Parts: sequence; structure tokens; C-alpha cells
Amino acid sequence: MYQFINNGSITSTKGFKAAGIFCGIKKKKKDLAVIYSKAPCTAAASFTMNKVKAAPLLLSKKTIEESEKIQAIVVNSGNANACTGEQGITDAEEMQQFCASGLNINNENVLVSSTGVIGQLLPMDKLRIGIPAAISSLTSNGGFDAAEAIMTTDKKIKSFALQLKLPAGLITIGAICKGSGMIAPNMATMLAFLSTDAIIETSLLKKLFMETVNNTFNKISIDGETSTNDMAVILANGLSGISIQEDSVEEKIFSIALNAICREMAKSIVSDGEGATKLVTVNVRNAKSKIDADLIGKSIANSALVKTAITGADANWGRIMSAAGQSGADFEPAKVSISFNDFYILRPNYSLSLDEKVASQILSSKEFEINIDLGEGSEETTWWTCDLTEEYVRINSDYRS
Amino acid sequence: MYQFINNGSITSTKGFKAAGIFCGIKKKKKDLAVIYSKAPCTAAASFTMNKVKAAPLLLSKKTIEESEKIQAIVVNSGNANACTGEQGITDAEEMQQFCASGLNINNENVLVSSTGVIGQLLPMDKLRIGIPAAISSLTSNGGFDAAEAIMTTDKKIKSFALQLKLPAGLITIGAICKGSGMIAPNMATMLAFLSTDAIIETSLLKKLFMETVNNTFNKISIDGETSTNDMAVILANGLSGISIQEDSVEEKIFSIALNAICREMAKSIVSDGEGATKLVTVNVRNAKSKIDADLIGKSIANSALVKTAITGADANWGRIMSAAGQSGADFEPAKVSISFNDFYILRPNYSLSLDEKVASQILSSKEFEINIDLGEGSEETTWWTCDLTEEYVRINSDYRS
Repeated sequence: MYQFINNGSITSTKGFKAAGIFCGIKKKKKDLAVIYSKAPCTAAASFTMNKVKAAPLLLSKKTIEESEKIQAIVVNSGNANACTGEQGITDAEEMQQFCASGLNINNENVLVSSTGVIGQLLPMDKLRIGIPAAISSLTSNGGFDAAEAIMTTDKKIKSFALQLKLPAGLITIGAICKGSGMIAPNMATMLAFLSTDAIIETSLLKKLFMETVNNTFNKISIDGETSTNDMAVILANGLSGISIQEDSVEEKIFSIALNAICREMAKSIVSDGEGATKLVTVNVRNAKSKIDADLIGKSIANSALVKTAITGADANWGRIMSAAGQSGADFEPAKVSISFNDFYILRPNYSLSLDEKVASQILSSKEFEINIDLGEGSEETTWWTCDLTEEYVRINSDYRS
Repeated sequence: MYQFINNGSITSTKGFKAAGIFCGIKKKKKDLAVIYSKAPCTAAASFTMNKVKAAPLLLSKKTIEESEKIQAIVVNSGNANACTGEQGITDAEEMQQFCASGLNINNENVLVSSTGVIGQLLPMDKLRIGIPAAISSLTSNGGFDAAEAIMTTDKKIKSFALQLKLPAGLITIGAICKGSGMIAPNMATMLAFLSTDAIIETSLLKKLFMETVNNTFNKISIDGETSTNDMAVILANGLSGISIQEDSVEEKIFSIALNAICREMAKSIVSDGEGATKLVTVNVRNAKSKIDADLIGKSIANSALVKTAITGADANWGRIMSAAGQSGADFEPAKVSISFNDFYILRPNYSLSLDEKVASQILSSKEFEINIDLGEGSEETTWWTCDLTEEYVRINSDYRS
């Protein structure tokens, strides 16, 4: 149905170019990316729910709501342009203008994104030189450079692409993203940019992208925090010549593939979380409602006690039960069963089959599943989380220098 | 109006006796307490909101709902009797019976409480010997022994008492409590027990106690977790001969004093939080509504990023803003000002007066205030939190041995 491409990126998609350069916002590392499609794109985007929204988000939200098409995204790292007042808005608008004029397109076809330190004005002198420089280095294999240029505390470059085989031919979805480990107002943010060459109307693209974001990026937890700058965008330039229609088989396949690439991106963000050493999939099963399932998934994924137990490879099912219990979801504790991968440590009526050795072995691995079955209904969900380590505390308590 | 008593305890109150002994649930330390009033008491209690409620809570909740008067509380540490199914209920009932018959009172006059490891059955053989032994060592200065016997990971004994001067004479409120640092299903829980010799009807006592619990114990955060065993109880035996009537001056004074002692208890729990080195008071001011104020207070008090910034004495106001922004409260970010004690780091319109040196000095102290003024309305609230340290992670990721 779909296949991931080795070393794929946002520029694996037909008609997309990208660049990532150093323009002087950071001390040494790449800090400015431009993503460009040779054809105008339908687009969909999801923005942070945080009440404190950075200037580029406010501008991009307005742009995407008012524009028919998007053709480019300009992104800087090292400075979030958040809590910067009126000047912040002016600066974001200037980034948009510089990018548009460099690409010879209209302002309303350009989205702007920033990540980095909060509360400081952008060094516009550097961006005025940097943006044209980035545009002049746009290439059709620049995805990795762009992925590198949007990193903050990320250790790994996050770049993906996959191809869908449809009767009418091939469609590509490419993507880059950056984690966080957390939102750190002075450091990080979650950003995700996707490209596709499918022909897909804005309304359908929005519907599919929102569903996917809810099932992937909105179900990961590093430390339960939401950044002022979080943003996910998909651009569809139609250059494959293949159309995705509502309620078609193609829509189904496209949706599954979109979920798959976003799930990989979300997991890559969690496993590269600050201080994280383990990637944990939390499956909630047989809940009364979707809402209950998600309340429990979120509570377990966010629990400092569950996350420190994972750090210690401690098969502490009591912490998982307690996290579920404080979630607000409706369930009967005595009906719950809990397993790590396929190994059950708790069955209904508090019947324990705890073999600490087996459980601890599973919890010592780099990647495993926590499954909680509520025995109440048939709704389910999946969340992803990581361990909470001393390294997380060290990174985040370091005095800014 | 009121005065704290040096070395006060739950037995500072007329007619109250207590005992704390070792009965063998823990390895060495005291693990069983009995609190007793020579006169039957009106009572009010608050129980955990966690859906997973330990057996003693279920029993005590039922008992206090159905009984006219309470005269004793039996509490063990080292085992939470939580997630123990039917046998857990039977065991809690047997604790109640043993305590009642030893004191020659009815079962329905006894509350039961437990804290410690989850998912293990109580060692009833030890409690059958221990409860009569504790009863035989009840004394009118046994408050400290009882306070010690309810400890789990607490480093300090938590015991308080104060006296109110009323025109009609003196009323005492005494108390013991235990923290947590967190709820740890295999370790800790928040328990608070209070005594008073005021004459006060159940309905009024309930009203005042619930208000107080909401303003104190429900506004502290170590790690945002709620235990399966959390419980706060107040017993009023009337032996002062002084009556507190609804809508009287006495009610006002009693309510203020009750708040004061619970606030001290709540603060003692936070400052003895696991790995905590700092006690931070979070004042939210000029919110549109009480609900908004509390959403913001809670979000800041719970934020891993704010708490690690406090650990590093990092004047990272961006993290405070971001925590407020993700709280769900309604406010305009540009109107916010933030101060540490009296030192403003942020004024409206993102005007910064950040002197890192002064700010860092304040954040390096053992106790300070974070004040966030929303400039929206006139509602306010206070929360208490602590820093998040590597020690917290160490304690909670240690493999249970």
C-alpha cells in the first residue's frame, strides 16, 4: 500500500526544493530553512493550543486562513519570536516579505515559523541577508539541510518520506520535523512540515490532516508541555497528477499513509526527547468511550511516576493504575488488566502474575508497549511517551549562559 | 486571633490521645498509629479524587457518611491496602473492628487509613497484635509518635497545633500529617488528621473543612499526581465547651485559624517533597475568574519546565508564561506581569526589567514567591510547589528491592 523511502525527506516529493543554511542566529549551527514548491499548493496546518502564541504563528494562521494557496515556508531556529509584542509581528511579516520577494511570489503564499529562545527580538539584519542566501541555495535534495536547520536540542535529524501505490500511479509524502524533548520556551518546540504531490482539495486535506495530527502529534508526551510555537503544516502541489477524492479508496489509502508517516515522525520526536532513553507505546483498550481512552492514555503518558518507574525498569503497575485512576475516565479498577508487551502483570480482580524478572527485562529494553485493558467497552487509543531521567532535569535546570 | 503552639500536635487538643508504635509492617520504623478522643466527635473528611480508591478509604467514606459520630482513627504505614480487591475490604473492616473493640466503642465510630505499597495484602497477623498494643499505649502526648508512625518517605515529622482566643475562652486545633513528595503508589500518600475541642455541628464543620482543604491541600503540587489513599479528616469533640455557630464572628475566626494550620501542613508537605530543596509560593493575581486563577496556578505549579528552571535558579519567565498559556485560562499575554518576590522581571507589553543577578539570587533561596499578575480582573489564588531535582528522579526510578 505504501513504502518508506530510504533517506527520504520533504524534497523526495516531486516539485519540492529546500535549503538549510547558517545565517548567524545561532552561534555556529544551521539556523534558517526555506521550503519551496514550484507549483502553488493546497495546505492545511495545526497550531499550538497555547494561549501564548508566537508572532510567526499568528501570522501563519492568518495567512493560511486567508490564502488560496501556499508555496513556501521560511523557518528559523535559535529564536522563537515569542512574547515579542508588536515588533515581533512586524519582524515575522518582514520574514514573509523577504521570502516572497526572493521567490517572486506573493506574501500570502508564504508561511513563517520560528523556534528557539522566547522573549528576544529576531536579529533581522541577519535574516535580511540570510533569507535570500537560503533561497539561492534551494535544491531538490535540500530536505536534510532544512531538517538540520530547524533543530534546537534535537540530537538527530528527523526526515522521512514514503510512496503510495495507487492504480493511477505513485504519490509521495515527504516530511521533516524537529522535536523538543519538551517545549522549552528557551530552547525547543515541535515543528513538522510535510509535502505531497497529490491533487487534493483544501477542505479534504484539512480534514485528513487534522485527524492525523490528533492521532499522532497530539498523542505524544515528553513532559506534558505545549510550546508557544508548535506548528504542523502539509503542502500538496498536485504534481503527481493523481487526485484524491472524498470517500474514495484513494482517500483511505492516502489517509493510512499520512498516519504512518506522522506516526514515525511523532515517535522520532519522543525517542529523541530530552534525556529520553526509551520509547514507550501506551495502548489503552476496551474503554467505554474514545474520550475515556484518551484521558487514560494521556494521564499514563504524562505521569512523572510512571515515567520514572520506566527509567528504573520497575514493573510498578500500581503507578499505572493510579495514573489511570486520576485521569477522570470512567472505569472499574477491578476489571483492569495490564501487560508489558505480551507479558501480563495484572489481570482482572487484582490477580497478579508478576514475575519481576521478565517484567524488568522488558522494561529494560529501548522500546516496548504498556497495554492497559479496561474491560469496559470497545474503544481504544495509542499514546507514545518516554522515560523521565536525571538527564532531563540536568538539561532543563542548567542556567542559561 | 490565633497563635501556633510550640511543639504542638493532634494531642494538644483537650481530650485527644494518640499512639504510634512499630508492629512489623515496615522493617524497623513505627508503622501503626491510633488517634482517640474521649468524647465522640462530629467529623468531616476529604478523600482522594482518584478513581482507584484504596479499601480503607472506601470503608472510611462509608463510615463517615453513615455515622453520627467518630471517636477514633487507626492508621498504618508501609502498606496501602490498595488494589487488594475483596480481601482488602475485609482486612480494612477487621482493622476497624479490632480498633473499636479495643477501645470499647462501635465499629461505626472508627475510621481506617493506610499508606504504603500498593497491591499487597495487609499482614493482618501483625495488625491483630499491633492494634491492641497501640491502644494500650495511647497517651495525651502521643501526637508525635502517631505523626512518626504515619510517615513513609517523609524526612521530617509533621505536627502542628494552634489556639484561638475567643471571647468565651480558648479553642485548640491540633494536627498531624504526612507527605509524599508525591503520591507514590509503592511509597507515599498525603494524609492529614486534625483535632479540635470546639463544639461544631457536622454540617458546618464539613462546609468549613471542605473550603479549607480546597484552599490548602488541593493547591499543592509535587509532581501533579493524586494518590489512591489521600485522606484528610477533622474530629471535633466539643470539650472546650465553646460553640461555633454559623455566620458568627467565632465561625470567621475558626475558619481563618483552620486555614492557617492547614496551610502550614500543606507547606510542610511541599517543602519535604521528594528531592525538593525549595518551597515556592505561586500567587496568581487579577484574573478574570477564580477558575482562571486556579487553572494558571495549577499549571505553573505542575510544570516540569518551571520546576526545573527553579532547580537551576534560572529566571526563565518564558516558561512561566508558557505554563500559563497552556492552562486553558482566558487572558491576554501582553497584559501579564511577573515578579519574583518584589522584583519584576516582566511588565505589560513584554517590557523586560530582567536583572539576571537579582533574579537568580532570589531563585537561589530556600523559599520565595512567583507572582503573576494577569491585569484582567480581580480574582486571585495561591498555590505551593517545589523544585524538580535529579534526586526526585533517583528516588522514584530506584528499582524496588
